[in-house]
Amino acid sequence: MEHHGMLIVISGPSGAGKGTLCGLLLEKDKNLALSVSVTTRLPRDGEKEGENYFFTSVEDFQEKIKNNEFLEWAKVYNNYYGTPREFVEKYLKDGRDVILEIDIQGAAQIKKNYPDAVFIFILPPDLEELKNRIIKRGSETLDSFNLRINYAREELRAIFMYDYVVVNDNLENALSKIQSIVSAERCRVSRNKSLIEFVNRRDRLI
Amino acid sequence: MEHHGMLIVISGPSGAGKGTLCGLLLEKDKNLALSVSVTTRLPRDGEKEGENYFFTSVEDFQEKIKNNEFLEWAKVYNNYYGTPREFVEKYLKDGRDVILEIDIQGAAQIKKNYPDAVFIFILPPDLEELKNRIIKRGSETLDSFNLRINYAREELRAIFMYDYVVVNDNLENALSKIQSIVSAERCRVSRNKSLIEFVNRRDRLI
Repeated sequence: MEHHGMLIVISGPSGAGKGTLCGLLLEKDKNLALSVSVTTRLPRDGEKEGENYFFTSVEDFQEKIKNNEFLEWAKVYNNYYGTPREFVEKYLKDGRDVILEIDIQGAAQIKKNYPDAVFIFILPPDLEELKNRIIKRGSETLDSFNLRINYAREELRAIFMYDYVVVNDNLENALSKIQSIVSAERCRVSRNKSLIEFVNRRDRLI
Repeated sequence: MEHHGMLIVISGPSGAGKGTLCGLLLEKDKNLALSVSVTTRLPRDGEKEGENYFFTSVEDFQEKIKNNEFLEWAKVYNNYYGTPREFVEKYLKDGRDVILEIDIQGAAQIKKNYPDAVFIFILPPDLEELKNRIIKRGSETLDSFNLRINYAREELRAIFMYDYVVVNDNLENALSKIQSIVSAERCRVSRNKSLIEFVNRRDRLI
């Protein structure tokens, strides 16, 4: 059965465990591909160019915006983040489903331009837990911490733009739910155009 | 997390394996309940009152229609089939998800009255296979066979009313897909009203 690649948008408050979940998802399902974002923020310890992000300058990023090279882009915590269009569209053409781990501003742009995308919101089990996780991350001043917490609150209200919500109270459960969502979305009538053609063709045989 | 029961409508051509799949689904997921339909057709060998169907007379069935006792009802192959309203609504109130294995006429009525229901269409791997399965069932005159085949063709065109399509080429795969659909639908933002209230409540704590 021919399978057109679909876009899977994954968002959620910073510290909800999106990154870990996306990594596990990719390990388990070889038809999935992860979009690597372009960013102007500095690499954190251990982050690798082309794997976690494509790191670039503000000037280069703004040039790419002008050239319409982003599927979506957003400015978060004074840094730019963008999804490279060519990179993602190549995967989709190959029939791969592409995960975009992006923020709510970016998700809103995808929703407008790709209404067929699947929108999943990851929630931490509770917000105290979320605060602790952000504090533990450490690499923050109090200002950047407050900025991040306020952004997290804003993000939570964006939940209504999403199709699905998954509470990451347990990594295994959360992973299994996201896998179910991906698997279910692949069964959508509207995504199985070749199957529908098959139905119509076979129908004439009787 | 509070979970409101949802209606899951499963349809598909006669012989697609809906009954077997529903049986397996119920075994694996104790939160699911199967709606037992009322019918005026005669019991087949081995069918049990209250388990496969509630068997009744045409007169009684028509009386129940008048009294608005059906969630949906349809006349198929000269027999009446109906979903008893009280039976289903009791399960939903208890937070159970209820499977309705019903035909496309019934599904259309559910779609109108319960737009939040989940609609799954089961397809046999191909229609030759379907013909063979119907022939094997045996208990048919040529007339009733032709009636059934024509109805199957009609049903296939109804696929566009459904949310999901599952090809039953392999029982295990098909079962797993339906389980994913149920699991995914339980994660729908619109179905998790208590979770959304939780988000709003916690939000004020920071």
